[in-house]
Amino acid sequence: MHMSSFPGNAQLRLPTPYLLFLGDTVESGYAKTAFGLRDWAGDKCVGEYRLAAGTVTAGLAELTPAEGYARGARSMVIGVAPGGGGIAPSWVPALVEALEAGLDLISGMHVRLGDVPELAEAAAKHGRRLIDVRVPPAGLPVGTGRKRTGKRLLTVGTDCALGKKYTALSLANAFAERGVDADFRATGQTGIMIAGGGIPMDAVVSDFEAGAAEVLSPDAAPDHWDVIEGQGSLFHPAYAAVSLGLLHGSQPDVIVVCHQPGRAEIIGAPGYAIPSLEETIELNLLLGRRTNPAIRCAGIAFNTSGMDAAEADALMEAESKRLGLPVADPIRGGAAFQKLVDNCIG
Amino acid sequence: MHMSSFPGNAQLRLPTPYLLFLGDTVESGYAKTAFGLRDWAGDKCVGEYRLAAGTVTAGLAELTPAEGYARGARSMVIGVAPGGGGIAPSWVPALVEALEAGLDLISGMHVRLGDVPELAEAAAKHGRRLIDVRVPPAGLPVGTGRKRTGKRLLTVGTDCALGKKYTALSLANAFAERGVDADFRATGQTGIMIAGGGIPMDAVVSDFEAGAAEVLSPDAAPDHWDVIEGQGSLFHPAYAAVSLGLLHGSQPDVIVVCHQPGRAEIIGAPGYAIPSLEETIELNLLLGRRTNPAIRCAGIAFNTSGMDAAEADALMEAESKRLGLPVADPIRGGAAFQKLVDNCIG
Repeated sequence: MHMSSFPGNAQLRLPTPYLLFLGDTVESGYAKTAFGLRDWAGDKCVGEYRLAAGTVTAGLAELTPAEGYARGARSMVIGVAPGGGGIAPSWVPALVEALEAGLDLISGMHVRLGDVPELAEAAAKHGRRLIDVRVPPAGLPVGTGRKRTGKRLLTVGTDCALGKKYTALSLANAFAERGVDADFRATGQTGIMIAGGGIPMDAVVSDFEAGAAEVLSPDAAPDHWDVIEGQGSLFHPAYAAVSLGLLHGSQPDVIVVCHQPGRAEIIGAPGYAIPSLEETIELNLLLGRRTNPAIRCAGIAFNTSGMDAAEADALMEAESKRLGLPVADPIRGGAAFQKLVDNCIG
Repeated sequence: MHMSSFPGNAQLRLPTPYLLFLGDTVESGYAKTAFGLRDWAGDKCVGEYRLAAGTVTAGLAELTPAEGYARGARSMVIGVAPGGGGIAPSWVPALVEALEAGLDLISGMHVRLGDVPELAEAAAKHGRRLIDVRVPPAGLPVGTGRKRTGKRLLTVGTDCALGKKYTALSLANAFAERGVDADFRATGQTGIMIAGGGIPMDAVVSDFEAGAAEVLSPDAAPDHWDVIEGQGSLFHPAYAAVSLGLLHGSQPDVIVVCHQPGRAEIIGAPGYAIPSLEETIELNLLLGRRTNPAIRCAGIAFNTSGMDAAEADALMEAESKRLGLPVADPIRGGAAFQKLVDNCIG
């Protein structure tokens, strides 16, 4: 898995490795980005930097920006998102210090880094970049529908926020463990930081949505796999446009359907039932066939984080039998997950 | 039909009536916007203004900006788009003159009005607006899927650029002629100028695509119709995201499928066949049911501009029989079109 190689044009490319900034955070729930980077991109993280008032740690080496730079870091990532979602004034001196030390700054927050005058000034003075991963790259093209070389897998879902990113990461890792040449392709802010690049698909102007997905997984060797992080759901009344543009532009050979058992309603859309797994498979294949007639569903990824192991295993076995497809929780792994990987590679 | 009333928030609203600017154009093919406004929004056009070197006319009263303002005009619309697509330096004095006379400027060009320094300066000096109708309004929300009151019709298509705008305009006019309370809802630049407002759906960030469509046709009286201009096609490998967001957010009760007989391939996508009418109906109903389970197809609008009348009539009659639905060319009108209108109103 080459999570840092992005041969296509017009993708975000982040300067790595990272120093993780934890601010003055005292609630570990605010540090999901830092923990996600530690867990899924540990090889890209040289250490962490926090303020005197902070207590949350990702367990990495504690380094100042200058020490981080000396150990190879080329950017500092804001790894915490406190309640307000903004850049706390108490952080600004540390962020300026990073720019002075030669590090670019990376943020996934809604507020843009350049809107903080001290940061804009320091970045200009030291010739450093302020990178907001929620902002799509410039120059995205309109889609062409032209069939590309190489193989592609897209994770799709019955809803938002149920494991499409972690399923894609787990599958890309599993492919690599088997010696299969694979790239994880990131489509959301956390995924982009983990991969070191990608395109925030939900922030792309809709006319360029499929074109952006085409750029994200460019032509590749015939036995190379792009494992693409899905977004939204074709059944979500707010976000289906994102999902369809990503499906058309990705031209997946294989989809894996992600689902959280027990969830009854679509997030943010009261009264909208979660579709069945059969409907979800069928609709994704129907629409996906438009740009790749050979598309198939290789199995189902369950998010069983709310269940105990015995209950989860029993449910997945029953569902696998019912559907005639592998069903596994990528985070639990095990034999069921290996079967899913088998069926993806085909 | 109230093409100028827009009760929702976050839509573009254009200052009307218009003075049409024809520049120094000598090719009538470049003046499609002006002709479209004359033909479909004649009641919003007080006159035209052209430079000494220009020969193309829309046949309206020739007025200077000051005369136009005196007759009620509140904006001057750039009604021509020469080959290069930009704002010719030879136009700038006339555009500044309009701003000085109290008119706002409206453009549907790719170049932004404010990027011409003389225009930015004159607009600031005189307190006038520079309105680029390709730029979506700020503050668009995420979709909710909440069912809205009133009735809605959406034109959909087997491809782009085959008559979805003119079909919607023709239907909205026909509704009004029958005393049905109806609004034309514009989703592209020319439609927005004709309606005096709307949202350029292809320029909206994909996360807000369905939400923008929800804003475009807000809650209305139970017997009120919004007749919504469709965009793209669910079968277009580049633009299906736009079409699905618009379909979901519009929650149409009725769709009318637009088609150009004889077109074999999707525009801009070599190798992609035009879908059959049956497939197009079926897929739009399948996906549209997610936000409006009562959706139905009321008929087909053919663009027969390339055929003679006898040939067109014979084809439409045969297709109507085959499909069991009204088939008509809205531009030709006639009994077939009245049948289509009947079936829309239901």
